[in-house]
Amino acid sequence: MRIQQQHFRTIWQQDGRVNLIDQTCLPFELVIKELSDVDQMCHAIRSMQVRGAPLIGAAAAFGLALGLQTAADDDHLQWVAQQLIATRPTAVNLAWAVQRMQAALRAFPVHQRAAHAWQLAQTLADEDVAQNLALGQHGKALIAAQASVRAGSVVNILTHCNAGWLATVDGGTALAPVYAAHDAGLAVHVWVDETRPRNQGASLTAWELAQHGVPHTVISDNAGGHLMQHGQVDMVLVGADRVSRHGDVCNKIGTYLKALAAFDQQIPFYAAVPTPTIDWQLQRPADVPIEMRDADEVAYMQGLTEAGQLQRVRVIPLQSAALNPAFDVTPARLVTALITERGIYTPAQLTALEA
Amino acid sequence: MRIQQQHFRTIWQQDGRVNLIDQTCLPFELVIKELSDVDQMCHAIRSMQVRGAPLIGAAAAFGLALGLQTAADDDHLQWVAQQLIATRPTAVNLAWAVQRMQAALRAFPVHQRAAHAWQLAQTLADEDVAQNLALGQHGKALIAAQASVRAGSVVNILTHCNAGWLATVDGGTALAPVYAAHDAGLAVHVWVDETRPRNQGASLTAWELAQHGVPHTVISDNAGGHLMQHGQVDMVLVGADRVSRHGDVCNKIGTYLKALAAFDQQIPFYAAVPTPTIDWQLQRPADVPIEMRDADEVAYMQGLTEAGQLQRVRVIPLQSAALNPAFDVTPARLVTALITERGIYTPAQLTALEA
Repeated sequence: MRIQQQHFRTIWQQDGRVNLIDQTCLPFELVIKELSDVDQMCHAIRSMQVRGAPLIGAAAAFGLALGLQTAADDDHLQWVAQQLIATRPTAVNLAWAVQRMQAALRAFPVHQRAAHAWQLAQTLADEDVAQNLALGQHGKALIAAQASVRAGSVVNILTHCNAGWLATVDGGTALAPVYAAHDAGLAVHVWVDETRPRNQGASLTAWELAQHGVPHTVISDNAGGHLMQHGQVDMVLVGADRVSRHGDVCNKIGTYLKALAAFDQQIPFYAAVPTPTIDWQLQRPADVPIEMRDADEVAYMQGLTEAGQLQRVRVIPLQSAALNPAFDVTPARLVTALITERGIYTPAQLTALEA
Repeated sequence: MRIQQQHFRTIWQQDGRVNLIDQTCLPFELVIKELSDVDQMCHAIRSMQVRGAPLIGAAAAFGLALGLQTAADDDHLQWVAQQLIATRPTAVNLAWAVQRMQAALRAFPVHQRAAHAWQLAQTLADEDVAQNLALGQHGKALIAAQASVRAGSVVNILTHCNAGWLATVDGGTALAPVYAAHDAGLAVHVWVDETRPRNQGASLTAWELAQHGVPHTVISDNAGGHLMQHGQVDMVLVGADRVSRHGDVCNKIGTYLKALAAFDQQIPFYAAVPTPTIDWQLQRPADVPIEMRDADEVAYMQGLTEAGQLQRVRVIPLQSAALNPAFDVTPARLVTALITERGIYTPAQLTALEA
C-alpha cells in the first residue's frame, strides 16, 4: 500500500528487529515502532498497535523470531509461543501462525532455529500478501458483476471495522476486492462503519481508503440498516477473525447486526477470508472464544483537538459501568458467500477447501 | 425526576420565561438555560439542548407562548408557529403541539392570546407527564410478567437512545416502565446503547438511570445483537419519534438493527409511545421525513478530559466525509407491541386508538 506515494507494509523485519506501524496513532499520526523483544510484541498485539486477524498472525510469527534471539531450546520456544498465543483469544490466525512456526522450528537443531524463525516469519508474511491479492481478484469479479447489473453506476459497498491493508501485512481482505475494482477503473464507493468502541472504521479504514483515493463516507454503526432500506448499499463486505467449518463468521462486534439487515433487505453479505482464518476444528458458533476487552474502550474515546493534540475524553457518566465484548458471530444462514484466495464458496461449499 | 434528591422537570415556565436543562452539557454538567424569546427556543430545539419527541412538543408549546409576548395577531401567530415547526422535521409531536396550540388560540381575542398560550403550554406539559405515568404502569406489567417467567431473577432490558425522563417533560416513555418496575421492587438491569453519533444513551440515559439508582451498563451500539444471541436480553424497549397508523416505528437511527436482532432471537421488542406520537395520517413507513443532521456529529465527539474540561475531538480523518441520517424506521412486522398511556396494542390493533 501507498502512504503519500511511498510503499509500505504494516510490519517488516530489519537487522534482527521488527518495525510496525502503530495503528493506535492513526489516522492523525504515522508512527513507526521498532521492537526488539517478544515482550514488546506481546504488548503491541494486546494494545492493538497491530490488529486484524492476518496481521496479528504475522506479528506473532515475527514475535517468535524476536523471542528466539536470546535462546531457542524447546522449553524457551514453548514459553515464547505461549506468551504470544495468550495475547488475544479470538482470531484463529494468531495461534495458527505460532503453532505452524513452532512445529517447523522443532525440526531444526537449536542453534539454527533463530535464523530459520526469521525466514519462516517472512514466508508467512509473504504468503499473507499473496493470498490477499488472489482473494482481491476473486472479489473484484463480484463487484464487477454488480457494476454490470447497475449498468456502470457506482457500486456502494458497506464495510464494518477494518479489514483493509492495515489488518494484514499488505493488500487487505475485505478491502482487497475494493482496491482491485477501483484500480481496474470500476466506480466504487465505500460506506465505512465507524466501528465503536475502537473506531477502526473511522480511524483506519477511512484513512487507508483516503490514502488510496477510494471514494468513501464514514457513518455511525447505527446508520447501515437505514441505508440498506433505502437502496444505498449494493453489497456488504467484511473480514473475519475466525470462520467455522460451516461458514459461521466471527468478526468485529456489530457484524451480526449488519448481516441481519442485509438479509432482511436481500443484499448480498460476503466475508473475505484467507484460508488460515478458517478454523476446521470449529463446529458450533457458540464455541468461539469471544474476547472481553477493557470497559474503558467504551467509556473513553480518542481524537484530535482543535489545537492538533491527540486527546482521550470520557463519554459515559463517572458513575456508570460499561461492557465491551469485542466480537460477535454471524450465523452461516446470513452469509451469502466467503471470498477466499482459492475462490468464492457458499457456507455449504466451504468444506471442499479443507485439506 | 430527582437530581441529587431534588425534583426537576426538564422544562418549566417562570415569570414569562422558560427554563430548561441544557442536555448538551450532560452528563458532566447540569446547566439550566433561561429563554426569553422564540428565537432562543428554536435554537434550543435545533441544537438539541432539548430533544426527545414529547419534550420538543412541550418545548415548542412554550416557545409559542414566548413568541406571542411581543404580538399575537394571526400573522404573527402563524409566523411563530412556522419558525418552531421548521426546527426539526421527524418527530410528529412538535407539529402536533404547535398546531393544537394555534387552533385553540385563534378562538381567543388577540389581547388574550398570550396569557392563554402560557396556560395551554402548561396543560400540554402536564398532559405529557400524566400520559407517561400511565404508560409506565402498563409497561411495568410487561416487566413484571418477565420477572415472573424468570422466577424473580433480574430482567434485562435493552434500550436505544434516550427515551427517559429527559426526552419528556417528566417520567419518560421507554424508561417509564423501567422506573415503575424498579420503584415497585422488581429487579431490573438496563443495557444502555451509547447511541452514536450524539451519544444520548451514554450521556443521558446512563446519567438519569444513575440518578435514580437503576442498575445499568453502557454498551457500544454494536454489542446488543451479541448479547441477545447469548440470552442476556429479555426485552427491548425503545421510544419513538413518530409511529405510523400501522405501527411502523420511526426512532433514533439504529433502532431497526436492534429490532432485527430481537426478532431473530425471539425477544420481545416494544416501543413506548404516548398517543400524540402516533401520526394517523401516516400510511407508509417510507413517507416519514428523515432528518439529515450535520456530518460533524459523526466526525466529532464530546467528552470530559482528565483535567475535567468538556472537549470536542475529531474522530475521523481530515480528508474523509461523513453522513448523518438521524432516524430510521422499524417496520411493524418486527414490533411486538406498542405501549401507550391507554394500554398495550399490537401494530394490528393500533387503529382502535384512533379518535
